[in-house]
Order: sequence, then C-alpha cells, then structure tokens
Amino acid sequence: MSTDGFLARYPDWEKQQTDRGVDVEWVKAHLKELAIETPSWGYGDSGTRFKVFQQEGVPRSPFEKIEDAAMVHKVTGAAPSVALHIPWDLVDDFSALKKHAEDHGIKLGAINPNLFQEDDYKLGSLCHADPKVRKKAVRHMLDCVAIAQEVGSNIVSLWLADGTNYPGQGDFRRRKQWLIEGLQEVIAAMPGDMRLLIEYKFFEPAWYHTDIPDWGMALLLAMKLGPKAEVLVDTGHHPQGTNIEHITANLLDEGKLGGFHFNDRKYADDDVIVGTMDPYQLFLIMKEMVAGLLDPATRPTAERVAYMIDQSHNIEPKIPAMIRSIMNVQRYYAKALLVDFDALRRAQDAGDVLGAEAILQDAFETDVRPLLAQVRAELGLHPDPLTAYAESGYAEKIQARGKGGQSWSS
Amino acid sequence: MSTDGFLARYPDWEKQQTDRGVDVEWVKAHLKELAIETPSWGYGDSGTRFKVFQQEGVPRSPFEKIEDAAMVHKVTGAAPSVALHIPWDLVDDFSALKKHAEDHGIKLGAINPNLFQEDDYKLGSLCHADPKVRKKAVRHMLDCVAIAQEVGSNIVSLWLADGTNYPGQGDFRRRKQWLIEGLQEVIAAMPGDMRLLIEYKFFEPAWYHTDIPDWGMALLLAMKLGPKAEVLVDTGHHPQGTNIEHITANLLDEGKLGGFHFNDRKYADDDVIVGTMDPYQLFLIMKEMVAGLLDPATRPTAERVAYMIDQSHNIEPKIPAMIRSIMNVQRYYAKALLVDFDALRRAQDAGDVLGAEAILQDAFETDVRPLLAQVRAELGLHPDPLTAYAESGYAEKIQARGKGGQSWSS
Amino acid sequence: MSTDGFLARYPDWEKQQTDRGVDVEWVKAHLKELAIETPSWGYGDSGTRFKVFQQEGVPRSPFEKIEDAAMVHKVTGAAPSVALHIPWDLVDDFSALKKHAEDHGIKLGAINPNLFQEDDYKLGSLCHADPKVRKKAVRHMLDCVAIAQEVGSNIVSLWLADGTNYPGQGDFRRRKQWLIEGLQEVIAAMPGDMRLLIEYKFFEPAWYHTDIPDWGMALLLAMKLGPKAEVLVDTGHHPQGTNIEHITANLLDEGKLGGFHFNDRKYADDDVIVGTMDPYQLFLIMKEMVAGLLDPATRPTAERVAYMIDQSHNIEPKIPAMIRSIMNVQRYYAKALLVDFDALRRAQDAGDVLGAEAILQDAFETDVRPLLAQVRAELGLHPDPLTAYAESGYAEKIQARGKGGQSWSS
Amino acid sequence: MSTDGFLARYPDWEKQQTDRGVDVEWVKAHLKELAIETPSWGYGDSGTRFKVFQQEGVPRSPFEKIEDAAMVHKVTGAAPSVALHIPWDLVDDFSALKKHAEDHGIKLGAINPNLFQEDDYKLGSLCHADPKVRKKAVRHMLDCVAIAQEVGSNIVSLWLADGTNYPGQGDFRRRKQWLIEGLQEVIAAMPGDMRLLIEYKFFEPAWYHTDIPDWGMALLLAMKLGPKAEVLVDTGHHPQGTNIEHITANLLDEGKLGGFHFNDRKYADDDVIVGTMDPYQLFLIMKEMVAGLLDPATRPTAERVAYMIDQSHNIEPKIPAMIRSIMNVQRYYAKALLVDFDALRRAQDAGDVLGAEAILQDAFETDVRPLLAQVRAELGLHPDPLTAYAESGYAEKIQARGKGGQSWSS
Repeated sequence: MSTDGFLARYPDWEKQQTDRGVDVEWVKAHLKELAIETPSWGYGDSGTRFKVFQQEGVPRSPFEKIEDAAMVHKVTGAAPSVALHIPWDLVDDFSALKKHAEDHGIKLGAINPNLFQEDDYKLGSLCHADPKVRKKAVRHMLDCVAIAQEVGSNIVSLWLADGTNYPGQGDFRRRKQWLIEGLQEVIAAMPGDMRLLIEYKFFEPAWYHTDIPDWGMALLLAMKLGPKAEVLVDTGHHPQGTNIEHITANLLDEGKLGGFHFNDRKYADDDVIVGTMDPYQLFLIMKEMVAGLLDPATRPTAERVAYMIDQSHNIEPKIPAMIRSIMNVQRYYAKALLVDFDALRRAQDAGDVLGAEAILQDAFETDVRPLLAQVRAELGLHPDPLTAYAESGYAEKIQARGKGGQSWSS
Repeated sequence: MSTDGFLARYPDWEKQQTDRGVDVEWVKAHLKELAIETPSWGYGDSGTRFKVFQQEGVPRSPFEKIEDAAMVHKVTGAAPSVALHIPWDLVDDFSALKKHAEDHGIKLGAINPNLFQEDDYKLGSLCHADPKVRKKAVRHMLDCVAIAQEVGSNIVSLWLADGTNYPGQGDFRRRKQWLIEGLQEVIAAMPGDMRLLIEYKFFEPAWYHTDIPDWGMALLLAMKLGPKAEVLVDTGHHPQGTNIEHITANLLDEGKLGGFHFNDRKYADDDVIVGTMDPYQLFLIMKEMVAGLLDPATRPTAERVAYMIDQSHNIEPKIPAMIRSIMNVQRYYAKALLVDFDALRRAQDAGDVLGAEAILQDAFETDVRPLLAQVRAELGLHPDPLTAYAESGYAEKIQARGKGGQSWSS
Repeated sequence: MSTDGFLARYPDWEKQQTDRGVDVEWVKAHLKELAIETPSWGYGDSGTRFKVFQQEGVPRSPFEKIEDAAMVHKVTGAAPSVALHIPWDLVDDFSALKKHAEDHGIKLGAINPNLFQEDDYKLGSLCHADPKVRKKAVRHMLDCVAIAQEVGSNIVSLWLADGTNYPGQGDFRRRKQWLIEGLQEVIAAMPGDMRLLIEYKFFEPAWYHTDIPDWGMALLLAMKLGPKAEVLVDTGHHPQGTNIEHITANLLDEGKLGGFHFNDRKYADDDVIVGTMDPYQLFLIMKEMVAGLLDPATRPTAERVAYMIDQSHNIEPKIPAMIRSIMNVQRYYAKALLVDFDALRRAQDAGDVLGAEAILQDAFETDVRPLLAQVRAELGLHPDPLTAYAESGYAEKIQARGKGGQSWSS
Repeated sequence: MSTDGFLARYPDWEKQQTDRGVDVEWVKAHLKELAIETPSWGYGDSGTRFKVFQQEGVPRSPFEKIEDAAMVHKVTGAAPSVALHIPWDLVDDFSALKKHAEDHGIKLGAINPNLFQEDDYKLGSLCHADPKVRKKAVRHMLDCVAIAQEVGSNIVSLWLADGTNYPGQGDFRRRKQWLIEGLQEVIAAMPGDMRLLIEYKFFEPAWYHTDIPDWGMALLLAMKLGPKAEVLVDTGHHPQGTNIEHITANLLDEGKLGGFHFNDRKYADDDVIVGTMDPYQLFLIMKEMVAGLLDPATRPTAERVAYMIDQSHNIEPKIPAMIRSIMNVQRYYAKALLVDFDALRRAQDAGDVLGAEAILQDAFETDVRPLLAQVRAELGLHPDPLTAYAESGYAEKIQARGKGGQSWSS
C-alpha cells in the first residue's frame, strides 16, 4: 500500500470512527503532542559481546549524532529531543552542542551518566566497597547534573549497572545503604525542577544480582529520595512473563512514573526495535498511559512521563530503525487512544470478561495507518516518514563519514 | 550411613569446626531455637488441576491434622506450631482445637484466610468490582483476626489469589485502591501485637495479572498499612532467575520481612519439598537470615521472622515429606551458621571475588549431619527424625483413617 | 463497529488489496477451507488446582458437549469436528454418538487418551516402573484406537502426563525405553491411514521432569515410530522465550508436523483463549503454515495439519469463548495469507532486515474484519458469529441444564 | 580448614564410605581419569557488551595461553588439554604450537571455528542467504579440520552463532537446508576418527531465532550427518527451567552425546564458574554420566564424552577461576560417584519417591574434600591446587606481561 493510499483512505476512516463515537480530533491532538526522545548512542555503532559490526555513515561526533537525531525528528515530527550519554557525548563546549541541536530543530534531553566503563567500576560504582570509588561515582553524577543545567535539560536518567557476579561477592544491605547515600547527595544538588529517573534491570551486566533489579527497588529508592526522584521503566529489563502494563499503572498511581526506555525483546535485554516482538504488549502499556491521562488523579504524572527510545540496532541501518521505532510507538499509542474506556469500565463493572477483552481487541485491530498519515499531513509532514527519509538523500550524504564512527562499546 | 554413625562422628566434627574458629555452642544454640511452622493443609490430600491422588491415612478433620503436625514436632523438635486455613480448618469450637494442639505439645500458628474458593470470588475478592463481594471478603478477614485471637495466634497470613485472566478484565488502579481500603479495615481490627503477613505471587491462579505479583507490591502495601503489616516471601512465587536472597536482605533492611513460606520448584509454583531442586538457593537465603541476626540493625526483624512450610505433597507420603522439609531447612540453616562472616566481610572489602565466594562454598560443602544428630540428641530426640517416625508406628496407626481425608482442593 | 459495517466496507477493502497485488479469491478460498477442531472438554467445567468454578448450562453428557460444539460450527462455519477425550467422553454406544454428531452437522475428531487420572498412574503410565501399569496404559491406548475406528476418526492424540517430581524418582533412560515399547505396540494396531499425534510439554503436572518435554523428544519418538507418528504442537507448552514458529517450520520441513493445540499464555500453560496474550506470535505461526502451503515440498504435510483448540475457560462463558477462539485463529490466518511472500523472499535475499520485517508488519496491521465478514456472508453465515450466537437463543436454552455439568477435573 | 586437614581426615572418610559399601578404589580411579579441557580464550580478557575490563598478566599470544593452561593442569592434574579457537589462536606454525603444548605437559584439544566475527557474517555464515558467504564459512570449517589434523586433535567443536534478530529477516527452512549442506561438506572432509560436536544455544547473539536453538535441532543435524557428528551440551545455553540432566541421559541413550561446555548461570548465558549458581544441577548431570558409565549400552558413548570448560571470567583472576572450575567439576563428579545406584534402582522400582530422592541427597551431602585431597596426593599433587598455584609464584611472574593481552571480543 502506498502511503498516498493511506492518506486517501482517511476520510472514510474518520467517518467510521466518528460513527463508533470516537472523538477523532481529540485523538489527533494527542498524537500530535506525542514526543519521543531518541538516544544519541542509538545512532552509533553497537553490538553484542561477540561483535560490533561497524556500519558506514555512523556519526563520528556528538554533533553528527545530533544531526541524525534531528533528521529523525524532521521526518516524524515526533522526536524533538535527543538524550546524551556522558562521557560518550562529552564535548568541550556544551553550549555549542546545545546551539547545534537548536539550529537543527531539536533540543537536548535526558543526561545519562555512565558508571560502568571505567576500570574503577569493575566491582561497582555507587555501590562499590571502596569509598573512593563511590565518591568518584557521585562526582560523575554531579557533573551530569551540571551538564543537564548547562544544556537546559531537566532530566538525569540513571541506569546503574552495579551488581555482583557471584554469591558472597558483595553485601546486599551495605551496597544499598551506599547507594542511598550517594543518590541523596546527587538529589541535593539538583535544582527543584530537575528529576532523577531511576532505571531498574533484572540482570546484565552483573549476573548474580543487580543492585536495582526491579520496579520495587527503584520505587523504594525514589520514595526515600523524595519528589525529585522517579522510576524509569525500560521495557526490556524484566523477567520473562512480567506484566509491564500493571507496573505502569501502579507507578502512575504512586505518582512516581518518570519515563520509559522503549525497546523490545524475545528473551533477554535484546534491545531490538520496540513493537517488533510483542506489539500487543506495547499497546497495553500505552493503553495504561491513556487511562492515566483520562484520570485527573494520575494526569499530572502521565503528562510528565518522558518517552524515550533505548535500543541497539546491531545489524540494521540506524536512522531508518529509529524512524520505525518512533512510528511503532505512534501506531500503538494511536490504537490505545481508540479504546472505548467508558464501555470498558461498564464491562469491568458487569464482570463481562469477554466483553472487556473484546473492547481492547477492537481498538488493537483497527488499522491506524490512515489516521497517522493524516496527522502527519496536518503537521506538514510527508505521510510516510521512511519515504521522506529515502527521498531526502540524507542516507547517501552521510556515507561520506565512512566506517568507524562512534560506538558505545568500550 | 546409619544415623548412629553421624552421632559418633560428632566429636571429630566439633573439633574440626572449633579448629576453624567456629563457636560451635553458638551454632547449636541457634539450631535448637529454629522453629518452623507446618501447615495443616500439608497433611491433607492435594494435587494438580489434573488430579488429586488420594492417600491412605490422610486426616479427616482439623483435629487429626493437628495430631500429624504434632507427630512431626515430636520427632524433629523443630515444628512447634501448625498454621490453620479458614475455612478448611473451620471448627465449631476453636478453643477445643487449641486445647487439642496443646495436649499434643504444639501451638496453633498463623491463620490463613481463604478468598478464592467461593463462587463469589470468581473474579476476585478484596479487588472485586462489586462492593458486596469486597465487603464479604473483608468480613472473612475479620473473622480470621477473631479466630487468631481465639487460638492465641498473632499472625494472619494473607495469600491473595486475586488477579485477572485477560487484558481489560480489570482496572489495575481501581483494584489496588479497593485492596488498600479493605486491608486498612482489617489492620484497624487487629490488636497491637498481631501482624498481617502479605504474600505475593507472580502468577497462578490468575494468568494475566495478579494484584500482588511481587515483593515490591507487597512492600508498598505493607508500608501503606503501617507497622502491623509485613511481607511474606514464598520461595516458589517468583519469576525464573529471581535472586530471592537479595529480596530477603532488602526486606530485612526495611524492617518488613515477616516470614517465609518454604518450598522448592523447578519451573512454576511447584510446591515440592524445600531444598530438593536448588539447595544452594536455600542456603543463600538462610545465610542472609544469619547475617540479619548478627547485625543489630536488623536483628529485631530477623528474630521475629516466621518460618513456615507451604508445600503440596501430591505423590509422596505426607508426614515423612514434612519431616524431610524440616530437616532440609535445618541442614541449610546449619550450613549458613558456619559461614565465616568476618572473613567474608574482609574479602568483600578487598574486592576478592573468588575469596568471598569460596567462603560460602566452604560452609555449604561442610557435612552438617553429625552436628544435627548431636543437636537432636542434646534435645532428647532420636538423631534421625525419619527413623524415629518409622519406629513410632504412627504411619501404620493412621491407616485406619482410610482414604478420602480432607483435601484443600475444591 | 457493527458487523454490518464490516461487510459494507468489504468492496473497498477488496479493491485496496487487489491494488496491492493480493489474489483475494485465493485468500478467501483458504479461509473457507480452514477447519479448527474444538475439544469436547472445552465445553465442560474446568479450573485451576485451587478451584473449579461451575457454570450454568455446562453439558451433562458427551451428547450435550457435541451439541455445543455443533453450535460453534453453526455460527462460525469453521469448527466442523469435535475431539473426544476418553474416558471423559466414554459412552456405551459410540455409533450413537457419531450419529448424534452427524445429525448436528459435525464429525467426531481426534481421540484423546487419558493416562493421568487413575490411581495406578500416580507415578506414570507408559513410563511406569511396574509393567502391569504400563500394560494397562497400552491397553487404554488400544481402546482409543478402536474407538477412533468406530467413530470414523483417523487421529489419536496423545498428551502424556508422565514425569517425575523429584531427582532420582525415575530413571530417564529406562522410562524412555518403556515409552517407545508401548507406543510401538499402539502404532502396530493402528490402521494405515490413522495417525498418532505426540504432544510435548515442558512441565506440569510433573515438576522435575516430563518424559516428553519438548519438540525434540516428540520428534525423536515420532521418527522411531515411523510414518504413522507425528508431532503435536501445543502453543502453551514451551519454556518462556521459545520461538514456536521456528519449531513449526522445522517440523513441516521434516514432514512430521501433525497438528496444533491452540491456546495462549503469559507464564505457564495458562490455557487462555488463543490470540489474547501474544497475537503476533499466532500470526507468525500461521505465516509459517501459509509458507508451508506455498512450498510443494511441505504442502502435503501442511495440508494434513490438524488445527485444534485446547483451552480452559475457567471464568468466561464457554461457548462464546470457543467462538472467539475460532475467530482469532481465522483473523491471524487471514493476515498471514496477506503476507507478500515474493517480496519477503527478495528482502531476505537482499539482506534487507528492516524491509523484510516491514512486510510482516504490513500484513499484520491490515484490518481483516471486512474480509472475514465477507467470507462468512459468502458461506451463508452471519458476518459476526457472536451476534449469531446471541440471537440464536441457545445460551438461554442451555440454562435448563443447570449447574454441575461435566468437568475434566478429577 | 587447611587442606592438610582434609588429607589427614581421609582415612576416617575412607572407612565411613567403605562401611557404607562404597568401592573407594573404584571412585578414586574414576576421579584420576577425569580430564577436563580448558579453553584458550578463557585465559584472555573477556567481558560483556558494555565493557571488557582488562587484567594484568593476560596472555599476549596463543603460546602464553598454553602456558597458563599447562599451569592449571600442573596443579590440578585434571586439565590435560586446551581447546583452540580459530582465528583467535591462529599461528603461522601449528606444529610449533603443538610442540609448545607438549613441552609444557599438555595437548591441544578441540578446534573451535569462529563464524561470527567477520563483517561478512553480520547476517549469518553457514545459513547466510548469499552462497559466497556460505562457501567462505565452509572453507573456514575445512581449515579447522586441517588444523585439527595438524595438531593431533580429533574434535572440531562448532558453536554456530547464526540466527536472526527480527521476524521475517530469514527463512527458517532455507537456512536449515543451507546449514545441512555446509556441514555435510565438512563432515566429508573429516577423517574417520574425527568428530564434529554441534553446540546449540537458545538465544544470543541473535535475538529472534537461532538456527540451532536446542538439543533437538542439534541432534537432528547430527543424525542427518551420520556417526561423525555428535551433540555438545553447553550448560548455560538453555531456557530457564530446563532439565539438563534429562537431556544428558537422552543423548547418551542415543549414542550422540559428544561433550560438555561447563559453566553456570542465573539468568542468561552468564558464563560464570561452573557450580557457583546451582551446584546441585551439576551433581545431577554428573550422576547421569556415572549412570551412563555403569550401563554397558551407554558406556562407549559416556567414555568418549569430552568435558570442557567454557566461561568468561570478566571480573575475577583467570587462572584461579579456571582452577576452581576444574575443582568444582571434580567435586560434583566425586559426589556422583558416591551415589548408591543399586539402592536407587530398588527405590525406583518400589515407587519410593522419598527414598530415591534421599539417596541422591546422601551422596550430595557427603563432604568429598578429604577424598579429593587424597586423590591429588596419590597423583603426586598438592592436595589443594589453589595453594599450589599461590605457592608457585606463577601469578607474580606473569604480571610482566602487563595489561592488554589477547581478548576474544572483537
């Protein structure tokens, strides 16, 4: 189906939905507001522990990463900021980097500290038994807070890789205490409108235990740290069989959902394109977000949630992969916006199990490509971002960068 | 090896450990204090959804279950109380049941409400959309509080089976709110020295979501409910790959570890005998408990923790299986008591990964059968509980009960 | 959306697909041929090990189960046979049962032996250490072969529940040898056009090991047993993270894929409605089946594959749940038929990872409700089977059966 | 406990076991024969996708790797060969490498091809859609066959990293066909006494599917390839909850168990030291191997099985980690040799579930450190290999190599 086709189908689509009782303008307004941050490191080379396959055209500097991120925003209209990772994106002059971003039509977003790639961190960082290492880690976090202020970002997003590989290697309770102390120092240095997003991860790169393995530990820390701390949900960081939409709803309820790192996986933290393995799960997560927006009690939290991509495009071209990721989140958000929540509530109250489930299936089954083509057209964009990208000549242009661009692997 | 053999070996064993620097008297004292509650329902028939294989000699009444539990205590000296499940153990006169227990040398322990076997609970109990069902569930909980007071127990232990089987079936946040409201009412009715232990379970019997899926949710509820509420860790209720000893340490640290339901599993909530699938995990959990006892900050919590068995002996004889369960917990607790915590701390502080791990392996590898035989002899017990049971004639005596005793399956 | 709406949309839909190059008549022809067997036990009461919630109107006899199955076929046109389970469906006169089915417009399908609900089978059946038990199990299988002949079915479908709960309980290699010997006897008694479908299951009801845990063991047995033996894939019987579509392709390639038991799950063998947890997986499986039909090398196997439902509708109404199951398989089969396999091959050959993936997403995203409404209309059916069922009055009629119908739980 | 202590305890230990009916000389003879191959790459730097922490003293060449492997053999007496990985261990003159090994008292063992670290292999090697890449991969395999002949090894051990990251990326059946064709060419080039060991892996580095995901596929390939092909079991390559001892028994039964890659894991393919996460599983696997040796039908296969270590010591010192790995395998093999198989058979035949399980627990609980100290002393070794290593001064000597030795990461 050509994308023109989807655009042409929109009037019929709109009528069908209006007939169903959908407020199509409300749906479109929400889609236009959806902003998904892309990660600078997602444009660089990445791989597995076995091999990083270098690609042609990979950015050679943070400046070039920003140009790629800006290109993704240009064709999608939905990726207005780019996350930085320090020191991967360390530059001498962050104001120049900020200006570079603004000149390209985007902003700098969450600042991601790195506490796992220096020799000192072999056995941990904020949880290391040696106070000198812990102090160094705190200092790096404080540097990141400063960088965030410098670039106008109000989010510091911490994935703590700390953990142990063997039973006995570390003392769980002491490590937790050290972690709290370190983060308290960081929080104290943060301005009032800045948030610390605490990510959790069930395993990897530590094999026996991770110091922040699950939402429970992340929330516990965030509660101890006060209102500036919130939880970050990376969709690939859970044990098999976890109901992530339930976690989403619960963190919304606690006012502590800070953001998402989107990606998909089949077994471990595969970091493949969001929506390619289990698209229904993505829909169900976005459905909780829409429900959160509709409820005055959770709306302030839901509106503040930072949507971010965090993926490793090991074998696929990076910019198209990022565009597709944005499009997938849009697709399943659009479907979530079509859920008939009033009917759902009635079915739930009536104990109508099949009826409630059918309401979700109905929304999921609806083809939203005409809608998304229309939304893009209304924003002055090409209805198909991938076509727009292909026609832009950008992919050819960046071949000049050659191979051997920046990589987040050490 | 005959058990007499183990007893005879004890003097050598003691010398070896004393030479290692172990305070053997301290170890023995802790082993003598170890009390593990057995569940009344563990003596009844049980099975899978496919079949309950009835066994000869299964108790026909709560009174007979108590007699079996008393027999387990008689030969192990370590199972001084029995948990009740209401209504499975509902009797007209709980004071008579209490007296029956005392006459047989044991006490009545935790009271376990049942919120999953009445038709009203098909779609939930405390989380049901219908306020009448929620009210009924709360009433049942209050009845259990009253029963606990009547039988002199200070623990009500809640496994909430609520959850949903399909996306959309329930509203996660509303259900949570209802759950909190219901439990607040229960907590308010509990006397000051009574504790509500909140169990969590990742899945089953609800398939899509459970309202209390993990320690994070259980702790969150316990924090909202105040000091009378604590978390109960059932060792079989986690996703694959979970580090349960980390959870143990963390809940100790929060002062919120209320107790354990011990059992083992290979894949799901198999409810097989504790220590038969992954004995090293049991050792590592008990090691955290010993560490918790050694630390003044966590000692009050650690001393209060209720150790309980919760298993389904579907194909094996029930009383021997329970005796073995008690013995397994003793075995791995004994090994945990042999850990050289000072050396472990030094290795951790020195970043000696292999050295720290070796300290745990050394304790785990130590054969503690001579020690346990000696401890039992010092308590006036037969050194081998299973031999004592075999020689007691009890197994033959209860054959008179025939087949078709009580079962917890509906 | 009313179903009339879907039917009205069909002409547009057809044009869109024809424009895409889809042979819509070919697609419709395949959809009309799709036959999915429903299980007699799916109409009876079922539950978890904790509770069977009885429903009103559940069949009280195999005859009534057949009436329900016939009703599902009447409204879907896609469920022309019903599987029997022996002894749950044991009747004095199978020819009467067969005639009853035919009178109601359906046929009797796969015969499923039961080797797990008699006391003799507590420790196994075909793998039991006692030759008398093994002989009894073989005899039951032979009875099932005879019943299959009597009712005109050419499939005996074996789910073997054998396994062990504890290390050491059984000898893996002896058990395997006994299993082979027993099945060889069964195969020898089967007429040439009858097939034995061998199901595998990773766990449950045995916890430590199951004798046929995976497709590898099932295929190995089928290879030893010769051309009459094939493998049955139950979609809920795998470890987490398993790629079932890969298994599907491989068994097709070996000419040994015998059939499917469809259901869905989030963690264990949840047996919930197929397509409700991970619909994309169902699509990917069906895509392998379509690919198998398109390839002359695998077509004979693919055409012979038996599609069957095997679910437990514990809390939802049984007949509507079964209708929805049929509709879900149709939906994702329809989407699989829309895959552009030529383009897919080209993308694969070109190493175009994103392009290949997009081809599948395009098919998956297509709304096939207009197509399915049209197919049903062309077959003389109501475009929406659930509406047809609701309007039939059947649900009200069977209320007269009351509660307490047949159940597969022991 | 000093290791002298263990040696001093041996006479008592021997008497205890002899009293139990154990043929201690038979046990010791088997322990002396146990040979475990170590991997050359296990001495180099390794890490996760996030970081390789370089260690001091890591070998700078294949020759130095062999020296380290020889050191491990010198102190354990149980690691008489070292596996090579091509091209990581590519040298100009393999006969010089062979001589170097022999001069240091060990042999060169399995040759491991590498089909995953060249750009050509980004989308696969033997399963690549491009015949030129497949041809190149076959050629590399043939080179490895030639190297094996040159160094006097009779094992080529293939871990195939091929797979796909996204649905649709590859055609499962075509890839399988290509794989078979390629391996047939390799097999044809192998001399009659050479074996191809086919490893399987459930996931990683490919995320969506791996071409050889499980023992079933590996066995199927080995059957198609004939008697020179066998299956290699890597203990970390299974989905959670897999019963690896069952797989071991089954492959022995089929005469197709070729070898093991030992390591341990908690969640994924963690590649930590064997026996540190789930030592009971290691014991149960070794128990199947002992049972296989005792049974004339499986003995030829069991005797031929190649025991190999395959681990990544990311944070711990490499040579001590390898020594510990050898010691752990010895420990659990020793315990397996103590199992009373006659009593086990009787318990199994009697349906004595608890009795059978207790027999395994008895062997597992036996402290075998005195036995292993004695066996080492009888072989003229220090009773504690780690002490011998510490006293050798080797660790200090290799510091001269500095940092930045060879690493298997690309």
